[in-house]
Amino acid sequence: MNTPANTERRLEQALLRGKWTLFERLPAERPLAEELGVSRATLRTALHTLVGRGILETRRGSGTFVRALPCRADSTGLADSLRAFRIVMPPLLSAMAGTLPPSVMLALERHLPSAGMALHAGDMRLFAQNHLRFFSTLLQATGNARLAQAGAATLPDAHALARLLQESSHVRLEEFFKHLARTLHGLRHADAQATTAAATAYASCLLQCMGEEA
Amino acid sequence: MNTPANTERRLEQALLRGKWTLFERLPAERPLAEELGVSRATLRTALHTLVGRGILETRRGSGTFVRALPCRADSTGLADSLRAFRIVMPPLLSAMAGTLPPSVMLALERHLPSAGMALHAGDMRLFAQNHLRFFSTLLQATGNARLAQAGAATLPDAHALARLLQESSHVRLEEFFKHLARTLHGLRHADAQATTAAATAYASCLLQCMGEEA
Repeated sequence: MNTPANTERRLEQALLRGKWTLFERLPAERPLAEELGVSRATLRTALHTLVGRGILETRRGSGTFVRALPCRADSTGLADSLRAFRIVMPPLLSAMAGTLPPSVMLALERHLPSAGMALHAGDMRLFAQNHLRFFSTLLQATGNARLAQAGAATLPDAHALARLLQESSHVRLEEFFKHLARTLHGLRHADAQATTAAATAYASCLLQCMGEEA
Repeated sequence: MNTPANTERRLEQALLRGKWTLFERLPAERPLAEELGVSRATLRTALHTLVGRGILETRRGSGTFVRALPCRADSTGLADSLRAFRIVMPPLLSAMAGTLPPSVMLALERHLPSAGMALHAGDMRLFAQNHLRFFSTLLQATGNARLAQAGAATLPDAHALARLLQESSHVRLEEFFKHLARTLHGLRHADAQATTAAATAYASCLLQCMGEEA
């Protein structure tokens, strides 16, 4: 199985074993591809995914370096997303409260009735998508690519979120929707504390849907 | 200039223009490569960097989809990193206070004297690297790949950080070092509040070095 995804995993394992340490330069593409027994195209694809993930960085003319080490657990399941979301998104949203231009507030406000209609119609796929559109619109508006990337890393997968919502009670879904409305309210009134509280409750509500302690 | 980096930027621009919306499937590789006038290998490299960045996702057998929209500002300068670090890292570290096994605490504690010696020797490259090793060790220990990725997105570039430290006064550097020691102290004593305060002061101190208001 010499797929790019498999090659990416093998490179991660090598980094975890300490084959290359932080800030070290990786071997050139040709010898590294030979060592791994993959084509240079496959290696390049794997390397670039790791660059995108912030683990490697390429410096023009000097090669590929280790920027951060991968995490020991490589599960990217829904519970991990939601736990990461609950830690990262409330302070991120709180920092944005009061900084959003009217055009962004307007775009955010449009997602709410759409989400409400999807909830009313029982269309959980659309309901999940509306939630994710709300946060994606916010992250786009940070004007800080690093911050946007940190937030995007914690967004749950739309399919997994829709499945979770399908299994949840209507009372829970109404509560969940209310937390989103409260988050928007906090942002609109530049109330950092209310925004933090609402976004935290929002994430905790989802973790409760999963049967996790909140 | 049909490099992978250039192709990545063109795809980002197309996403910002709304050519493809959130959750939409991108065209197949062959027609997309033709449309962009690049080789399939170049396109694939660009697509995988965007997958790593969490903007696109590939689903086996069904194609490449838009997972999150890119941020309008694509600068990834030091100031942006530090601002993102100040928002994301304090709550992240605070959530980890009290959860770290002794082996990780030991690894973290080893970075401190190394940083102290580098500071004393005036080796700002090594000093910066020791700081980044400290945070990288912590992120590895989260056991949550999404959270680790969110944190890693905010880590400053080692070269840029070393340059900033080189230009800073010795008083500022001593202060900066003390905030790192305080962060470690907070983590060791499972004191979430002290950890948050120390990590926030740490990031603010760096932003002050840059001449930014903190």
